[in-house]
Amino acid sequence: MSEGLLGGIEAGGTKFVLTVGESPTRVHAAHTIPTREPSQTLAEAREWFEGQGNLSAIGIASFGPVELDPASPKWGHILKTPKPHWSDCDLAGYFQQAFSVPVGFETDVNGAALAEYHLGAGRGASSLTYVTVGTGIGGGTIVDGRLVHGAGHPELGHIYPRRVPGDDEFPGFCPFHGDCLEGLACGPAIHTRWGSTLSELPEDHEAHELVAGYLAQMCHSIYASMATEIIVLGGGVIKTPGLLDRIVNRAEELGAGYFPRRQNHKILPPALGDRAGLTGTLLLAEAALRGEQS
Amino acid sequence: MSEGLLGGIEAGGTKFVLTVGESPTRVHAAHTIPTREPSQTLAEAREWFEGQGNLSAIGIASFGPVELDPASPKWGHILKTPKPHWSDCDLAGYFQQAFSVPVGFETDVNGAALAEYHLGAGRGASSLTYVTVGTGIGGGTIVDGRLVHGAGHPELGHIYPRRVPGDDEFPGFCPFHGDCLEGLACGPAIHTRWGSTLSELPEDHEAHELVAGYLAQMCHSIYASMATEIIVLGGGVIKTPGLLDRIVNRAEELGAGYFPRRQNHKILPPALGDRAGLTGTLLLAEAALRGEQS
Repeated sequence: MSEGLLGGIEAGGTKFVLTVGESPTRVHAAHTIPTREPSQTLAEAREWFEGQGNLSAIGIASFGPVELDPASPKWGHILKTPKPHWSDCDLAGYFQQAFSVPVGFETDVNGAALAEYHLGAGRGASSLTYVTVGTGIGGGTIVDGRLVHGAGHPELGHIYPRRVPGDDEFPGFCPFHGDCLEGLACGPAIHTRWGSTLSELPEDHEAHELVAGYLAQMCHSIYASMATEIIVLGGGVIKTPGLLDRIVNRAEELGAGYFPRRQNHKILPPALGDRAGLTGTLLLAEAALRGEQS
Repeated sequence: MSEGLLGGIEAGGTKFVLTVGESPTRVHAAHTIPTREPSQTLAEAREWFEGQGNLSAIGIASFGPVELDPASPKWGHILKTPKPHWSDCDLAGYFQQAFSVPVGFETDVNGAALAEYHLGAGRGASSLTYVTVGTGIGGGTIVDGRLVHGAGHPELGHIYPRRVPGDDEFPGFCPFHGDCLEGLACGPAIHTRWGSTLSELPEDHEAHELVAGYLAQMCHSIYASMATEIIVLGGGVIKTPGLLDRIVNRAEELGAGYFPRRQNHKILPPALGDRAGLTGTLLLAEAALRGEQS
């Protein structure tokens, strides 16, 4: 083992959360900076880490789309994104060069999935899907200890749920797909449609059942596709009182008692709460230090 | 290596396909028997294998639902099935006892997925989903060489596609879910609805676009959930001339150019054709002989 601390970066579209720790569970410090243009943001992050002492490795969990293929010359880059200036940003390369340490790189949700699988709601399970429902909807899956990558990486928010009968007017919010899941049920979609957050709407407002219905379809599709043992639902929208229970109940109805061993399947809140992402970056750093891909 | 041949059993709801070979690609003989009651069917299979010489291992790929958890006392059993007499049948145990050899056991589609991944359309790919569209719809996925099991096993046919606009009258065919994917697009659903197979309907019959639209949604969901590099579509319905191209085109439209590295993703027919299932059973036997789970 090298001397020094593990560094972690949660690279989000509105903020970067930086952290250092002795291990994924022993965090020394954390610091949040706003996401501005890449050169400024990365320099600010670098400066903060430089004040924290020696680093042995860095883990980055980033907003996407990102390049995860270690064989690609674009590994560690953000790919074409609507976010101005960030397309083609070499996030991993910047920190590799700045600190000359191994860097682990993943999607934001894959980082959180790692944390919940190893240290949170998924401990002991064979597979886990972590979904965040916030400014967007995204999901990452671990099967038998390994993150599912595939040709690129999952973009779970962009499945098309069936519209709830009678709910046909709102065209949806996604610039690519209109009324895909993200277009119907992410935070900004809810705000655009009803003018407030879901938590602010009265308990008997139709929004609760509609959003729960769309997210339950997602859980049903995840289970039908992968039989995922544990689905962890995180992100701001999921904090709406009562929402998780509604989703669990609707998903149960959609399954109609059909699925084998459904009793082993659970839909849960993140055991690590808001620390899932941050913990995941330190797990990525630890894996990079061991020379592993997660 | 033990002396003797590998044996394979594709256990289907209407027929059992039995095979023996030196290796998954060197098949000596194959034989089909109708699926009757368990005791009769299994005895017939045993008798055929006894006439083929010494067996070193047997691989079984079965209709489901099945128990795949090696830690369960019900491993190798068919679980509760609407098919009369087959619930709780100890398929793997019967052949383990009859031949005193290692037995590998999987779902039918997982067996075919193994074959296409190792020896067919998925060679060199990081992940593959094999889907059969026939008397039912089912799918199995391999990621980085390992089959995805989860809490039970995937039941991909039972996702709910969005109804194509205007196509609201047919209630669907699935006894559990009505108009889930299998309820709308499997062979018997097509026959119930239009009175013939899809191949028999004229090229410009609406059925082609409807079925393609529903199966394209499945491909879209698979890609959004798992970013699967190769989707192999097999089964009788897929043999309809022109159907695969329609599915590929509709799936491309649904993606709307959004997904990262979509160019690495392909939707293909089985490279092994109708031999995918049979080849898979011999791969399962080979893995059992090595003492591995697939």
